[in-house]
Amino acid sequence: MKRLISVIGGREASPDLLAEAERLGEGLARRGWAVVCGGMEGVMEAVCRGAQRAGGTTVGILPGHDPREANRHVDLAIPTGMGLSRNAIVARAGEAVVALGGSHGTLSEIAFALQFGKTVIGIRTWKIEGVREADGAAEALRALDALSDRPGR
Amino acid sequence: MKRLISVIGGREASPDLLAEAERLGEGLARRGWAVVCGGMEGVMEAVCRGAQRAGGTTVGILPGHDPREANRHVDLAIPTGMGLSRNAIVARAGEAVVALGGSHGTLSEIAFALQFGKTVIGIRTWKIEGVREADGAAEALRALDALSDRPGR
Amino acid sequence: MKRLISVIGGREASPDLLAEAERLGEGLARRGWAVVCGGMEGVMEAVCRGAQRAGGTTVGILPGHDPREANRHVDLAIPTGMGLSRNAIVARAGEAVVALGGSHGTLSEIAFALQFGKTVIGIRTWKIEGVREADGAAEALRALDALSDRPGR
Amino acid sequence: MKRLISVIGGREASPDLLAEAERLGEGLARRGWAVVCGGMEGVMEAVCRGAQRAGGTTVGILPGHDPREANRHVDLAIPTGMGLSRNAIVARAGEAVVALGGSHGTLSEIAFALQFGKTVIGIRTWKIEGVREADGAAEALRALDALSDRPGR
Repeated sequence: MKRLISVIGGREASPDLLAEAERLGEGLARRGWAVVCGGMEGVMEAVCRGAQRAGGTTVGILPGHDPREANRHVDLAIPTGMGLSRNAIVARAGEAVVALGGSHGTLSEIAFALQFGKTVIGIRTWKIEGVREADGAAEALRALDALSDRPGR
Repeated sequence: MKRLISVIGGREASPDLLAEAERLGEGLARRGWAVVCGGMEGVMEAVCRGAQRAGGTTVGILPGHDPREANRHVDLAIPTGMGLSRNAIVARAGEAVVALGGSHGTLSEIAFALQFGKTVIGIRTWKIEGVREADGAAEALRALDALSDRPGR
Repeated sequence: MKRLISVIGGREASPDLLAEAERLGEGLARRGWAVVCGGMEGVMEAVCRGAQRAGGTTVGILPGHDPREANRHVDLAIPTGMGLSRNAIVARAGEAVVALGGSHGTLSEIAFALQFGKTVIGIRTWKIEGVREADGAAEALRALDALSDRPGR
Repeated sequence: MKRLISVIGGREASPDLLAEAERLGEGLARRGWAVVCGGMEGVMEAVCRGAQRAGGTTVGILPGHDPREANRHVDLAIPTGMGLSRNAIVARAGEAVVALGGSHGTLSEIAFALQFGKTVIGIRTWKIEGVREADGAAEALRALDALSDRPGR
C-alpha cells in the first residue's frame, strides 16, 4: 500500500507559494509518498505537477461530479459529488497534512486533520494552535522525514 | 417552512458557557427560530434544553448511526452515519451560525459557514477573521434580530 | 424525541400514487409520526402535503445547497450539498421506510434501508426481496401500527 | 489521468465468483484501466489481487476511518469515515461499473451507477433493468473494450 500525504491549500496562491507547493510535490514523490489533495487548481495543481515530474502518484478527491474538473496533473480523480463535505475525506486520507496558504476551505481541512490527531505542517497558512509552521517545502519535508521513520497511522 | 439557526460548540464547556447556550436556545425559540445543531452533549444539549423550554423545535444532525445518541432535548434526530463529515451539513443548515466555545470540530464548522457566506456570531470561541464576536446570548440574539428582518438566505 | 418514518419515492409519479402518498402523510401525522423525506417534488411533496394537513411535522433532507429547493410542505429543510449521497441519510433517518414508486434513487434508498435492517414497506415500487408489499397507504399504515407498538430502533 | 473502472460486489462470495473477480482485475490491468472499489474483503479483495498481479493500480474507497482496514491488495486506500454513504462515491468513480454477486450494499451501488447514467455490467448479481448481464470476466471485459474505444465519460 502506498503511503499518502494530504496537501491542502487554496485555488488561488502567490507565485512564490505555488513554487513551494511544486517543490513539495517533487520532494514527496522522491521520498515515495503519494500525494492526495482536493484535485482542483492553485496549490492543488502545483503540488500534483511537482509530484508527477518526479514520477509520483497523485490522487484528487473532487467536490464535483465530473473527473474532468480535476487539474491535469491528477493521476487518479475521484469525483465525490459531495461539495465541501469532501474536505473531511481529504484531511483524513494522508498520514500527515501539509497546508499552504488557503482560505476557509483549507481552514476546515486543518481543523479536521487536527481533530483526527494528524500532524499538520503549515506553510504561510492559518495560525492555529497545533499546526507546526514551516518556512517552505524543504522544512516541511524534513518534518515529514521524521514521521516517515515511524510506522504508518 | 421554519427558519433555522445553526448553533455549534463543544461537547465540553464551562458552566457559564452552557448557561449562555441555554439562554440562546430560549431566545431563539421565543423569536420563532428552530435550532439545528450536532445533537450531542455540552453546548449542543444546553441550547436544545433552552429552546425546548420555550416551546421551540430542535434538530440534531448526528455523526453516528443511532438516534438514541442524541441528547434528550433533540426533537428531531437525524443520524447521518457520516462522522465528522456531517459538520458541513450542520454549518449549512441555518440561515446564520452561532458558535460557543468549542474545539476543532467547531472550528471546522466555523470555516464551512464562512465559506458558505453565512453570518457567524461567536461567543468565546475561535478568533477567526469574519466571525462577529458577541459577549453572550443577549448580544448574539440582537445581532440575529437584525438578520431576521431581512429575507432568508 | 419525535418518532420518524422515512418516505421515499420519485419526483414523478401517477396521480393515483401521489394520492396514496398524500393519504400516507395524513395517516402518519395522525399517528404522531414525523415524516422525513428527500424534500423534493412528486411523492416527497405529496406525503409532506398530507402530513402538514393533519398537523404533522415534515423534514426534507435535500441534495442541493439551497433550502428554497424544498417543496413548500417541508417544515424543516436540511440542505446537505451532498447530491445523491444524501440518500443514505434519508434511508437511515426513519424507524421504518415506506417506498412509493420511484426510480433508481428510490432503489438506492431501499437498498440502504434493507442493509440497515429497517422494515421497508413498498407501494408499487421495486420488487426486491425483503420489501413488504402493500397495496396502498391504508395497508402500509396498518403495518406501521404493528411496528409502533414496539420500542423504537 | 488514469481511466478507472468501478468494481463492486460483496464481502462474501463463492470461490467461483472470486475467481471471476480476480480474472476481471487481471484483464482490467492488462487493458490499462485502474480499479476502484470499496476496498474491503471478498469480491473487492479478489479484483485487487488480480489487478496487482498484472501490474495495475487499485484504489479502495473505505467506509471506515482506518486505512489498515483495506485489503492488502489496495494500493491507494482512501478512508472516508462515512460508512455506506461512501457507496455513491464508489459508483461514481469509474467510467463504467462491473458488479459481481453482492448484497444490499452492491444493490445501492448499482442503483447509483444507473442513476449516474453509467454502463453497468453484472455477473451473477441483482437482476435490475438496465444492468447488462455477462456470464463471467471474459464477457465483461469484451463489453468494456467496446466502451474503451469511446472517449471517457
